[in-house]
Amino acid sequence: METTTRSWTLGELANILGGTLEGPTETRICRPIPAGLADPEGLTFAESPEFLTKVLDSGVGAVLVPKGSGALGIPSIEVDRPRAAFGHFLALCHRPLPIDAGIHPTAVISPEAEIEPGVSIGAYVVVERLAKIGKGTRIYPFAYIGEGCSLGEKVCVFPHAVLYQDVAIGDRSIVHAGAVIGADGFGFGWDSPSRTRRVKVPQVGRVTIGSDVEVGALTAIDRATAGETLIEQGVKLDNLVQIGHNSVIGEHSVIAGQTAVGGSSKVGRRNEIGGQVAITDHVEVGDDVYLAGRTGVTKDLFEPGVYWGVPAKPIITAKRISNLTMKLPEMNKRIKELEARLAELEQRTK
Amino acid sequence: METTTRSWTLGELANILGGTLEGPTETRICRPIPAGLADPEGLTFAESPEFLTKVLDSGVGAVLVPKGSGALGIPSIEVDRPRAAFGHFLALCHRPLPIDAGIHPTAVISPEAEIEPGVSIGAYVVVERLAKIGKGTRIYPFAYIGEGCSLGEKVCVFPHAVLYQDVAIGDRSIVHAGAVIGADGFGFGWDSPSRTRRVKVPQVGRVTIGSDVEVGALTAIDRATAGETLIEQGVKLDNLVQIGHNSVIGEHSVIAGQTAVGGSSKVGRRNEIGGQVAITDHVEVGDDVYLAGRTGVTKDLFEPGVYWGVPAKPIITAKRISNLTMKLPEMNKRIKELEARLAELEQRTK
Amino acid sequence: METTTRSWTLGELANILGGTLEGPTETRICRPIPAGLADPEGLTFAESPEFLTKVLDSGVGAVLVPKGSGALGIPSIEVDRPRAAFGHFLALCHRPLPIDAGIHPTAVISPEAEIEPGVSIGAYVVVERLAKIGKGTRIYPFAYIGEGCSLGEKVCVFPHAVLYQDVAIGDRSIVHAGAVIGADGFGFGWDSPSRTRRVKVPQVGRVTIGSDVEVGALTAIDRATAGETLIEQGVKLDNLVQIGHNSVIGEHSVIAGQTAVGGSSKVGRRNEIGGQVAITDHVEVGDDVYLAGRTGVTKDLFEPGVYWGVPAKPIITAKRISNLTMKLPEMNKRIKELEARLAELEQRTK
Repeated sequence: METTTRSWTLGELANILGGTLEGPTETRICRPIPAGLADPEGLTFAESPEFLTKVLDSGVGAVLVPKGSGALGIPSIEVDRPRAAFGHFLALCHRPLPIDAGIHPTAVISPEAEIEPGVSIGAYVVVERLAKIGKGTRIYPFAYIGEGCSLGEKVCVFPHAVLYQDVAIGDRSIVHAGAVIGADGFGFGWDSPSRTRRVKVPQVGRVTIGSDVEVGALTAIDRATAGETLIEQGVKLDNLVQIGHNSVIGEHSVIAGQTAVGGSSKVGRRNEIGGQVAITDHVEVGDDVYLAGRTGVTKDLFEPGVYWGVPAKPIITAKRISNLTMKLPEMNKRIKELEARLAELEQRTK
Repeated sequence: METTTRSWTLGELANILGGTLEGPTETRICRPIPAGLADPEGLTFAESPEFLTKVLDSGVGAVLVPKGSGALGIPSIEVDRPRAAFGHFLALCHRPLPIDAGIHPTAVISPEAEIEPGVSIGAYVVVERLAKIGKGTRIYPFAYIGEGCSLGEKVCVFPHAVLYQDVAIGDRSIVHAGAVIGADGFGFGWDSPSRTRRVKVPQVGRVTIGSDVEVGALTAIDRATAGETLIEQGVKLDNLVQIGHNSVIGEHSVIAGQTAVGGSSKVGRRNEIGGQVAITDHVEVGDDVYLAGRTGVTKDLFEPGVYWGVPAKPIITAKRISNLTMKLPEMNKRIKELEARLAELEQRTK
Repeated sequence: METTTRSWTLGELANILGGTLEGPTETRICRPIPAGLADPEGLTFAESPEFLTKVLDSGVGAVLVPKGSGALGIPSIEVDRPRAAFGHFLALCHRPLPIDAGIHPTAVISPEAEIEPGVSIGAYVVVERLAKIGKGTRIYPFAYIGEGCSLGEKVCVFPHAVLYQDVAIGDRSIVHAGAVIGADGFGFGWDSPSRTRRVKVPQVGRVTIGSDVEVGALTAIDRATAGETLIEQGVKLDNLVQIGHNSVIGEHSVIAGQTAVGGSSKVGRRNEIGGQVAITDHVEVGDDVYLAGRTGVTKDLFEPGVYWGVPAKPIITAKRISNLTMKLPEMNKRIKELEARLAELEQRTK
């Protein structure tokens, strides 16, 4: 399976994860495993009795469980928070996509680019003039870093990502493969009232991305028409997301796959936005807003809360409406019955 | 139009396709043509009288028709199944994207990669250490094959596809341009109850793709958090599809463009899933399920059948509800009338 | 911020933009700025009193306003059409993604390709045999130009775009980063009634793109099964759009992000299609049709107008239905009340 087979004894893991081992200290564990899968060299976790049942029959090597779980019939490590301990083990097992230190001989780096020490630049990377690459930053093969881009420290740009010119990215941010940052915003007007042809509005702004941001694979963030498109610190964007020109995504918001934020819109802080959501142009969403999948935001929405539907409504309202929609056949029947009964009554009391 | 102009006489084609020619044997045919387009060197097909009418006036060179159609006024070849014969002719005309045999001198191949004989590796391909490339596999320019990836025999990886580490692909599978396989799953938690910043859940699993799979252009398949994301044999994914971490797509299922399957979800076998569909996280869809375009699956759905809507409903129910929704103005009016009539009646009978 | 800091005095700008200056001629302006942002070196515009209020307090260097606005307290240039003058200034400030003239030594160009003079071909571009590149065309790093492709004059292909074989692109068209043109259409049939495996329908057609077209980042346009997929002149496609095989997009239509047009569908001229719209397979949309975001077109739609919803309805109808849907809880309550009142009345008049 995995290429590099590191392993730990259960004794070592109990020690590293700060837990108490119930079982043989010498059993070897090679990898994390989702609950319910068989793997005598795997370690999983169970926070609830339901998951534990699933795990006990699965043939896994060992399980992380809450303190006080006692002997379970399979090796276990008791910890304070099994999910967190599993996260710790995931981090232990994490093997970054390999890249050699230094600059690969095939990389085409402008002599006018500014490269700090301690970077890794892979095969067939292009870095244009006036670009700045911070300390410890890794740029994987085929990435294109346009003129005047600025990457902070420990940034990671995965293969095939494209940064047009004037894209700034803060420290420790991650850009996944195939993401395109800084392509032209989508702006056109007609040439004349007779509408002969569309005229492009030149897009001359930039994209600014804060620190600790993650940009998913094949996600597009357009440059501003003028000024900047802004992704604030700590934002996490999933795959295939579209961020329009001049929009702002507030600190620590997360946006799931295939969601679109229109041009000149502003999304607040700490939001959680589901997949395939649409936020139209020129609207504002406040802080601490949750949007369930497929929600359509068509006007400003400031009140913190959980929303769903098109247009976005508080989720309780939206679910009630959705349920009533499913009762439309019944409602229609009730109206028909009312009409018949009323007609009869009208006839009778004429 | 097409670069290489091969051609066949109608006599040759009747022979190759196993049909009976009505018309001149020496007329030359150069290419397949959709029904209704003009092209004296083109061949099309017509299964029904409607299509035949469209074809007869179109100026096409010849038409494939069912046996017993007789003379039609334009050259025709009578065959058992016109659509299948047309498919046969498409296959005759198919010209694979050209790539030279062997390894292009600009390809950067790790000395620790294992390349079987008979492969074609194009310009500017990167193959990392411990990757295995099977016999007869073609890898087009700019593809990135990450550490420990394993490609079977006769696999085809089109330009600019990206495979992060630990991606396995079965025999004869096709990965289209710009697809990204193995990027991190989308998993984050808060650092603390005070929610200062999001913490990334390390993604250490892999992606396993069976044989005879097709992955569309710009489609993203995330690696598992732990364990594997699994695309079983014979699955066909269209363009711009999103497959979340740890999900499973069952054998021979097809998924149309811009559809998303959430994390840890399981899609059954032989399903047909339309475009822009969403299947949320942690749900299961059974075998032989058809989901019409834009359907949203929010909970388990095991019963084979055709579904539509959000949440997914049997399509007859969903269409009935959709039709009634369009009658809401009328229903509203009927309620108003009932109210007025009832008020009058109440008044009258007081 | 921007890399190259050009600047103009207000006097120069008033002259270039054909306006009348209210304010000091020597103030220097370096860049366009969205209304409401602070930048003493920025120029913005205000067409309405609302925008002007926003601008006056913002700390911007100067503002373009309609003729007759008079002294405003900040420097201003009076012009006939402020938005158009701002567009003119945007064009002045536009700095194309830099690329050197000529062919970069790392580009891999087939000796059988035909390259006209005056082209720019960047690092690590691949141009296959029988491709033709017109005068003044720019091809950025990592673009793949497949066999038999034909690019007109002054075409611009941004980094990482992929053109499979037989793609023709007209003069002055723009293909943004990561776009994939000419990948296989999505066509499969079962091998037999027992449905053992899916069989690929070979895709042997081409893609034809007219002049003055713009293709957004990460947009996919599939090649035709036979014949051509056609994007007519002046069409503008946003990011992450999917165009199916054999479809036609009519002249000067614009399509916003994440929209999908199915296979063999025909979209008319001068249409404006919002984001996340779906047009299903084998339907036709007429000229001068506007589709609001998320609309689903499921059958032919010829009448010019503005549409919304699934299925697409005239927007007034669609909004009325949407509003009534939100009143379903109230309608349900009214039906209940009617039932109660009617039951009472029936009882009373028995």
